[in-house]
Amino acid sequence: MRLRRGAALGSYEREAVLAVLDAALVAHVGVATPDGPIVLPMAFGRTDEWLYLHGSAANAALRAAVGQDVCVTVTLVDGIIVGRSPFHNSMNYRSAVVRGVARRVDDPDEVVTGLRLVSDHVVATWDTGRTPTDAEMRKTIVVAVPLTESSAKVRLGGPNDEPTDLDGPHWGGRVPIRSVWGPPEPAGDLPAGVDVPADVVALSGQPLR
Amino acid sequence: MRLRRGAALGSYEREAVLAVLDAALVAHVGVATPDGPIVLPMAFGRTDEWLYLHGSAANAALRAAVGQDVCVTVTLVDGIIVGRSPFHNSMNYRSAVVRGVARRVDDPDEVVTGLRLVSDHVVATWDTGRTPTDAEMRKTIVVAVPLTESSAKVRLGGPNDEPTDLDGPHWGGRVPIRSVWGPPEPAGDLPAGVDVPADVVALSGQPLR
Repeated sequence: MRLRRGAALGSYEREAVLAVLDAALVAHVGVATPDGPIVLPMAFGRTDEWLYLHGSAANAALRAAVGQDVCVTVTLVDGIIVGRSPFHNSMNYRSAVVRGVARRVDDPDEVVTGLRLVSDHVVATWDTGRTPTDAEMRKTIVVAVPLTESSAKVRLGGPNDEPTDLDGPHWGGRVPIRSVWGPPEPAGDLPAGVDVPADVVALSGQPLR
Repeated sequence: MRLRRGAALGSYEREAVLAVLDAALVAHVGVATPDGPIVLPMAFGRTDEWLYLHGSAANAALRAAVGQDVCVTVTLVDGIIVGRSPFHNSMNYRSAVVRGVARRVDDPDEVVTGLRLVSDHVVATWDTGRTPTDAEMRKTIVVAVPLTESSAKVRLGGPNDEPTDLDGPHWGGRVPIRSVWGPPEPAGDLPAGVDVPADVVALSGQPLR
């Protein structure tokens, strides 16, 4: 699995991990429970040192994660690879795997930092939205996972076919995926005259990273 | 976590799970190891009863999964939800969670069935590609996870904001994501005159499901 435990993360690999995290919308968070492993999709944010997750104070998966080893995996699929043989079918993708002990964030300033980072991970909305109330904050827990043990893997290019297949009759190549943000769609109950935040407008028509 | 163990899957929920599986390109497979949980992205295929994974016979995660409880999670993000408060930010998504004991597939016919299903999950290439050799088959392991214990979750629509926020100055709505297959790109080493398989051509310009 080529995933190191306890090794310091090299600066090159750190940059690769951070780039994949920044491009992704959701992380798949894995926790071991007495009832078997559980993997759930979650929004996330990051600093250079920590990956932040948030959820309802009643979120069973997050609560199960606190103090435990977790694995947070992020994957972006950029296209499919068609090999001359199905044995060489593959995908082009970028993925990052972060492993570490999840820490419940208790410090009120770090709670706000973590929530802001999750909120603003895809598009900055913390400052343009209504400030969370104390009651909303009490309903929310924030969990941090260290980025120390993490790795990135990126597959680019075309198929890696057998040399003996290259002159054969079978097609090989790739089919890319193009993902673009659509135009913002106001909530059905939005009054007239409320402007779309500039950062949300700016997404429209942009490729996902 | 609303994930049942041992409960029969209702036909409605089964249809929902299968629809999400059919739309997804990769699954995130979680396995508990003595060294903590590990979550890795994998291609997959399915019947109505089994989810199939494949990999190199040297694949440590797949080998660790055999005979163990695993959790296979698939998520498609359809857009982001901007709430009036960041507390109500969310995403529109479709996800399926499958939990069960992973079984190494030994029966040669089922190995071929499983590999074909994985190969053809996104686009059918098993019949148009070169038939796998015995040596390729020996390098590959196939693992099956029962779909018995599975659940699906789909979020649609706009934000679920507080009633007291609806007349406020803050924008709420959603930003959809549009993903489309690009045109097939032949491998750099493909000789002239090899036609692109019709099913691969047919992807081009189509939305991802």
